[in-house]
Amino acid sequence: MYVILVYDVGEKRVTRVLKRCRKYLNWVQNSVLEGDIGDAGLKKLKMELEEIIDPDADSVIIYTSRTTRYTDREIMGLRKGGQDLII
Amino acid sequence: MYVILVYDVGEKRVTRVLKRCRKYLNWVQNSVLEGDIGDAGLKKLKMELEEIIDPDADSVIIYTSRTTRYTDREIMGLRKGGQDLII
Repeated sequence: MYVILVYDVGEKRVTRVLKRCRKYLNWVQNSVLEGDIGDAGLKKLKMELEEIIDPDADSVIIYTSRTTRYTDREIMGLRKGGQDLII
Repeated sequence: MYVILVYDVGEKRVTRVLKRCRKYLNWVQNSVLEGDIGDAGLKKLKMELEEIIDPDADSVIIYTSRTTRYTDREIMGLRKGGQDLII
């Protein structure tokens, strides 16, 4: 499935959250990642994030789509993502 | 159509970008908005954002889906969005 993940976490946890997310997804903007991931991978990622984030202070939103066919992506301005982005 | 918009813009422009986006979409997280919007509305929003953002420094990503049926949203941790979010 195709996933868009956006996070808003405390500064102390940003590096760990981003590192964990990049194991599974491609970094596309400051706090946004996307990519193809299987059920098992997504489950693992969520478990790993649960161990890092503070549920009383942080927020992670995961949008899941069974297909990418219905989604277009348009970027205005800079492409800020890492070099791991494959368009 | 259904839109997810994520922005990463310079501090000076954050307030104006958020205000403009909230005219059309619901704020769900620090720099993330989503909502139903028509073609005309989306076009207007993009024109308004183009006037505000610095294309050499800022980044706005707009994901567009013709339907929401294929998209699930899961929130881990806090719901940080404004009160304009209707779930």
